[in-house]
Amino acid sequence: MPIPSPNLYPPFNIVRLSHVEFIVSDLAASRAFYADTLGLQVTHEDNDEIYMRAMEERGHHCIILKQGDEPRADHLGFKLYGERDLELAENHFSSRGLPVTWVERPFQSRTLRTCDPHGIPLEFYVQMDRLPPIHQKYALYKGVKPLRIDHFNTFSPNVDESVAFFNEIGFRVTEYTEDEESGKLWAAWTHRKGGVHDIAFTNGRGPRLHHTAFWVPTPLNIIDLLDLMSTTGYLSNIERGPGRHGISNAFFLYIRDPDGHRIEIYCSDYQTVDPDLEPIKWDLKDPQRQTLWGAPAPRSWFEEGSLFTGVEPVASTLAAQPIIAP
Amino acid sequence: MPIPSPNLYPPFNIVRLSHVEFIVSDLAASRAFYADTLGLQVTHEDNDEIYMRAMEERGHHCIILKQGDEPRADHLGFKLYGERDLELAENHFSSRGLPVTWVERPFQSRTLRTCDPHGIPLEFYVQMDRLPPIHQKYALYKGVKPLRIDHFNTFSPNVDESVAFFNEIGFRVTEYTEDEESGKLWAAWTHRKGGVHDIAFTNGRGPRLHHTAFWVPTPLNIIDLLDLMSTTGYLSNIERGPGRHGISNAFFLYIRDPDGHRIEIYCSDYQTVDPDLEPIKWDLKDPQRQTLWGAPAPRSWFEEGSLFTGVEPVASTLAAQPIIAP
Amino acid sequence: MPIPSPNLYPPFNIVRLSHVEFIVSDLAASRAFYADTLGLQVTHEDNDEIYMRAMEERGHHCIILKQGDEPRADHLGFKLYGERDLELAENHFSSRGLPVTWVERPFQSRTLRTCDPHGIPLEFYVQMDRLPPIHQKYALYKGVKPLRIDHFNTFSPNVDESVAFFNEIGFRVTEYTEDEESGKLWAAWTHRKGGVHDIAFTNGRGPRLHHTAFWVPTPLNIIDLLDLMSTTGYLSNIERGPGRHGISNAFFLYIRDPDGHRIEIYCSDYQTVDPDLEPIKWDLKDPQRQTLWGAPAPRSWFEEGSLFTGVEPVASTLAAQPIIAP
Amino acid sequence: MPIPSPNLYPPFNIVRLSHVEFIVSDLAASRAFYADTLGLQVTHEDNDEIYMRAMEERGHHCIILKQGDEPRADHLGFKLYGERDLELAENHFSSRGLPVTWVERPFQSRTLRTCDPHGIPLEFYVQMDRLPPIHQKYALYKGVKPLRIDHFNTFSPNVDESVAFFNEIGFRVTEYTEDEESGKLWAAWTHRKGGVHDIAFTNGRGPRLHHTAFWVPTPLNIIDLLDLMSTTGYLSNIERGPGRHGISNAFFLYIRDPDGHRIEIYCSDYQTVDPDLEPIKWDLKDPQRQTLWGAPAPRSWFEEGSLFTGVEPVASTLAAQPIIAP
Repeated sequence: MPIPSPNLYPPFNIVRLSHVEFIVSDLAASRAFYADTLGLQVTHEDNDEIYMRAMEERGHHCIILKQGDEPRADHLGFKLYGERDLELAENHFSSRGLPVTWVERPFQSRTLRTCDPHGIPLEFYVQMDRLPPIHQKYALYKGVKPLRIDHFNTFSPNVDESVAFFNEIGFRVTEYTEDEESGKLWAAWTHRKGGVHDIAFTNGRGPRLHHTAFWVPTPLNIIDLLDLMSTTGYLSNIERGPGRHGISNAFFLYIRDPDGHRIEIYCSDYQTVDPDLEPIKWDLKDPQRQTLWGAPAPRSWFEEGSLFTGVEPVASTLAAQPIIAP
Repeated sequence: MPIPSPNLYPPFNIVRLSHVEFIVSDLAASRAFYADTLGLQVTHEDNDEIYMRAMEERGHHCIILKQGDEPRADHLGFKLYGERDLELAENHFSSRGLPVTWVERPFQSRTLRTCDPHGIPLEFYVQMDRLPPIHQKYALYKGVKPLRIDHFNTFSPNVDESVAFFNEIGFRVTEYTEDEESGKLWAAWTHRKGGVHDIAFTNGRGPRLHHTAFWVPTPLNIIDLLDLMSTTGYLSNIERGPGRHGISNAFFLYIRDPDGHRIEIYCSDYQTVDPDLEPIKWDLKDPQRQTLWGAPAPRSWFEEGSLFTGVEPVASTLAAQPIIAP
Repeated sequence: MPIPSPNLYPPFNIVRLSHVEFIVSDLAASRAFYADTLGLQVTHEDNDEIYMRAMEERGHHCIILKQGDEPRADHLGFKLYGERDLELAENHFSSRGLPVTWVERPFQSRTLRTCDPHGIPLEFYVQMDRLPPIHQKYALYKGVKPLRIDHFNTFSPNVDESVAFFNEIGFRVTEYTEDEESGKLWAAWTHRKGGVHDIAFTNGRGPRLHHTAFWVPTPLNIIDLLDLMSTTGYLSNIERGPGRHGISNAFFLYIRDPDGHRIEIYCSDYQTVDPDLEPIKWDLKDPQRQTLWGAPAPRSWFEEGSLFTGVEPVASTLAAQPIIAP
Repeated sequence: MPIPSPNLYPPFNIVRLSHVEFIVSDLAASRAFYADTLGLQVTHEDNDEIYMRAMEERGHHCIILKQGDEPRADHLGFKLYGERDLELAENHFSSRGLPVTWVERPFQSRTLRTCDPHGIPLEFYVQMDRLPPIHQKYALYKGVKPLRIDHFNTFSPNVDESVAFFNEIGFRVTEYTEDEESGKLWAAWTHRKGGVHDIAFTNGRGPRLHHTAFWVPTPLNIIDLLDLMSTTGYLSNIERGPGRHGISNAFFLYIRDPDGHRIEIYCSDYQTVDPDLEPIKWDLKDPQRQTLWGAPAPRSWFEEGSLFTGVEPVASTLAAQPIIAP
């Protein structure tokens, strides 16, 4: 199957991924991880929840932590371009038979909640409280010096369906892996904001959230984080890396928060704003697509992910992902 | 005067700046500078001209060098989103009384040539020959490891007029300096592709091209270039830097090519895709807007620029820029 | 057993490790690896051998490659302080019953050849041909930008004996691992020149050469080398890393040359010139001593090493090294 | 005049420079500068004085700040190799007619105080309190991440005399500038510990302390410090840089503490342990000796320095240093 064409004139205009909400089992432990260790800036907190932003973001939050019983990803948030896009989005999702509801979210204008065909909870809004710039308040930088949220990566039980759904609303595939035998997509990276991805899909029991990524200035910040985590009690939270991805060409590190939610620290992918940018195809058997330098990922990285609130994942229609024994 | 509102729904869709064409007096000397020293990749060359691209670009060229008698910037190139944008652009510029002509350019689809109100030659096209990716052919990286063209910066005799013109076609101001006394804009940075700028304007005798910038991975690549240039006969081509700009927050270096065309090596500005991103205002008297660390720029940097082919610059309507004696 | 005291007033003065000679099976393939890929500078070559130095070295060579039938490490070279140290060295080794011979080596003054108690061939000289500085000829830098040879690491069948021998001639232990049960040394790092080591010893079938290390400016140079090797046919030559050692605190990468000789690329250990610097003791069961960030080394790294010319290794007196399954 | 020969077998053994004591006019302000901004670690403090060390040092202090009325450099400290070197040092300085006294210094074994021929107060000791390693306590790293004290640089009224004095006690010249007309030394860099210098001398009214330098991991740490200082009220404390020295090849930044004592942040010079390392000669007229990349130093950098306690500087015997107008 050829890679589906992106919809160059989509029914409404999504600017970028915006934020994620995690249910966490110990808010204080999560705060120590995200604020004190990673270096995200707290913009609001009370007994039940914490909102944070990264250093170059002026929107109020890119991550919301809520105290709960069971760790979950509650929803993935996206920013729309203008007020009219909200109505157009509502119409679009309704016409596809998806549930749409208007929800109230603190620090955001009215918010549309829906889900993708496999059940991933998606929320769309136009305006979020705007905060003063802090990207030149260098005394605040710490940890890995996170600059901005970069992307989501999800397990999908049917990547062809996921890509078709997101293509239709304007996400363009930048790189992908195809299962040669079935001709089906194994994994795909799709973007709105001009990087390699705002959201990616990998074949597997899903929907589940594989990871949420933050952009940092240089690979040396990632090395700094490794040194910090490995000497402050977070050694076992380091899961994979550092390394260079073949796909995206980014320098990466994967870590796990205290509940196991996976975070990628990421830098140096490439600009993708050209609408005629050709997607790059990778062979499922090429180990360099995962790590350009050849080191395999651990089994946990292939198998584990966060459940979405109230969504039961289902098995993939394709065979289990071939794990290269490390 | 308040900063003009960007046109959120512009009459046609410009994706990004694309390329610049320089007239150079010694093609071999320019090749040594751009290809051998900076590390741009030659994609076509003959006796009269050289086309080059940077490492993550798949379009055929971001810079064209043509042998000529007098050094000039011939035109600034921009990529449009879709075929229909070409007609819309033609209509728009015609309706503003600007000259529009269709020109043939090698390696590009049909190209619309016009100019801005002060005479800067602008060219718009939709498709350029696409080349295979080379961003993972690491044996090709050399010099400063240029990844992509990033922006143009121009002298404008009337920055308010320049910004009004570019605002109308969808460029949004990200940062600016106002002349407190007159209430007029002194300088402004405007973008399409999601960085701090695709094109900027500074008060001065114009139009002239102040510089063309290339994006590189990290500040260490800029340090490498300084070491290389200062020990291979290019010491006097180093004009200003390295340093951190207050405006844009980028790490920078300014160098001059053998004809004096100014090139900025640039990295680490910030993402600006939010349509409601508030422009940052700087005080004209604040030296940190130019260099966050306080070091002044040399006089040449304030005064010199490339003439555009066939365009006679005129004096600015504002007083001469206050040069901080270094 | 307590860590043996270094001899603060040794019988002769060794300045530093100096060079290694490798027998290689395909001189052209080795040249492509060491000169074209790593970036060492060829200082002499003919049909049978190649001499190379690193960028900040003014001695003629830090590595000698000789064409041969079977890959071997021929000897480890050390520089003595003054002419009188040659005689003192001869006396010392003779008095210990070790074989001493005077050999002629190109580009070196007269050279004393002996061996350590397990048979490692050692060569000592005072003067080597001096070459003009090239550390500011930045056009010559390439590959990983190797600055200097840093250290040797060897398998020893009896680390206590190795350390006693090298302690006596002035090498000081900076870090070590003890086998808690037997009270014997498992591994030790010993230095002369003020870094963590000039030569280190690890328990194992020996003597064999585990690796030879080169110092580079920053971790980013190591990342550059990984990108280069993994896209120019050297993917399978990458063995371990990048990572941070617990022991030495250095940032490292291990690669294998075309014959399997192991090279470490190394930077950022610490200064050890104080004669009262306390050795740091590591627990053999602490995986962070090998990789601060926790990733295990592959089996090959524990088991494989270069044979020395004409020396048959013997089994260690301690149990096999516990390999942490990766 | 030829560069004086180093004394390869000096009368006593100096290991390295060790520490500096500054008299400061506002202890709290100095603490904010050195501890909170630069990131040195406080090892002892009371109302009158603060002792600090850098991250990889295990000796108790590399810098002592004492509250006083007038800013001064009180003395330069050096570590000797063994107990017998103390007596040998006393004999040597006495035989040269220099004043020697035994002083008690907290956290140090008995200490010999003397001065060089121009009056620079020098203190020598063998043992200092040893502290546990903190180089792998990455949570403590902040500011510029200073790793160790690297060198002193002084104004000398007669550089030939300074070099002769320090040559005799084993310091070797690594680089120097000669005044072509007079044949006299203009400046010289001399070392003990294997880097480009432990102490350097520049022609000028002296003796005065030009600067004290700290070693940091990479140029990026220096960029981080510039960002931090320029946005936390220390903009005017940035004096010169960042840049690459021609002499030493180091990447540098010069800053001034609240009393004007000059600190250099320094990295990436080269190893100099070979006793036959040829000194590199620079032409006084070559601006690249100061900054490889060509940018001139400000006038203050040429003219200002710290007075030593109780020592009145005298004019140099050579003409004033030619300042290259920036």
